[in-house]
Amino acid sequence: MLPSALNDAIDALGRLPGVGSRTAERYAYYLLKSDANVSAKVADTLLKLHQNVRTCPVTFAIMDASEDISPLYVDPNRDKSTILVVEEPLDIYALERTRSYHGVYHVLGGAISPMDGIMPDQLHIKELSKRVADDAVSEVIIATNPSVEGESTAILLEKLLHETYPKLKITRLARGLPLGISLEYADQITLTSALDNRTNL
Amino acid sequence: MLPSALNDAIDALGRLPGVGSRTAERYAYYLLKSDANVSAKVADTLLKLHQNVRTCPVTFAIMDASEDISPLYVDPNRDKSTILVVEEPLDIYALERTRSYHGVYHVLGGAISPMDGIMPDQLHIKELSKRVADDAVSEVIIATNPSVEGESTAILLEKLLHETYPKLKITRLARGLPLGISLEYADQITLTSALDNRTNL
Repeated sequence: MLPSALNDAIDALGRLPGVGSRTAERYAYYLLKSDANVSAKVADTLLKLHQNVRTCPVTFAIMDASEDISPLYVDPNRDKSTILVVEEPLDIYALERTRSYHGVYHVLGGAISPMDGIMPDQLHIKELSKRVADDAVSEVIIATNPSVEGESTAILLEKLLHETYPKLKITRLARGLPLGISLEYADQITLTSALDNRTNL
Repeated sequence: MLPSALNDAIDALGRLPGVGSRTAERYAYYLLKSDANVSAKVADTLLKLHQNVRTCPVTFAIMDASEDISPLYVDPNRDKSTILVVEEPLDIYALERTRSYHGVYHVLGGAISPMDGIMPDQLHIKELSKRVADDAVSEVIIATNPSVEGESTAILLEKLLHETYPKLKITRLARGLPLGISLEYADQITLTSALDNRTNL
């Protein structure tokens, strides 16, 4: 019943994550009501997205297609002997915003999840292991998400790296209370971690 | 810090209604991870949206750009002597899905809202008044939204139409309990309407 071009736009926008048909309808109708420039601009950025962004062959971070290797890796001010391992490229930007880390990164490309068909050999684990040797790495910081999948991945990673490099320092991000949470509402596991890893004042 | 093409896509998607920077980031990153065809498809539909959809000059409904007048108006099976007045073009499709209405439509293009700078002369009221005469209309059903703006618009519309066409039947959609609501949670105005407009069993 709807004009077919509007229907097509609703279908296409409905493929975005978490967007149902009602939301897609709202987006499409908003664009239709706005100036044609707005949808042209969105379309243009989406067309350029794959062209102008690529994955770093060393760290698997995302970068401008004009770069050969991630600027976060080639930067001479960054310490290549420390690698922080994350699941997804965007995790890097969350960490960079803290301005507290000066080593380099490695993106696994996900976490082990047999339910979703993601097995260890689909993650960039071999490449990480190679980098540990190539760059004479002294510490690997595992920063997978605090989820079941992230935890399993961290455990496997620790096991594999420890087998190959018995002297390598392997750490993971601290567990504890995040800013602004009430003790009353903190879950048991977080609270246990916060207690076990308490720090001196 | 992010690759500029990704940043551009995040900015552009962030212009969609109700989409904050986090959601825009999620959409853009999802598209980046998906096959390039997916974002190309979305881009293509958005480019065609304005080209292939236009507004009917009579009813102000939206229609394929190939049509001259809305098919819902030219259809000889539809009763042109009854006009149902809605705020927005998509309201028509909600009503069409009921398969309970066989008259024609008129889109106002919004509701009066001095706060948002929408005044009566920006709505398609004159065109509605003209249609009432041109098509020898016997009934106008006002189906603006049950909001403050929709109500004000309905009252003004009734007043204007009544002045010009004293014999015209002017109705509005019934107020009452929607399906699935508990009496306990129904608001006072709805409940009052439901009581006032009770029907015989």
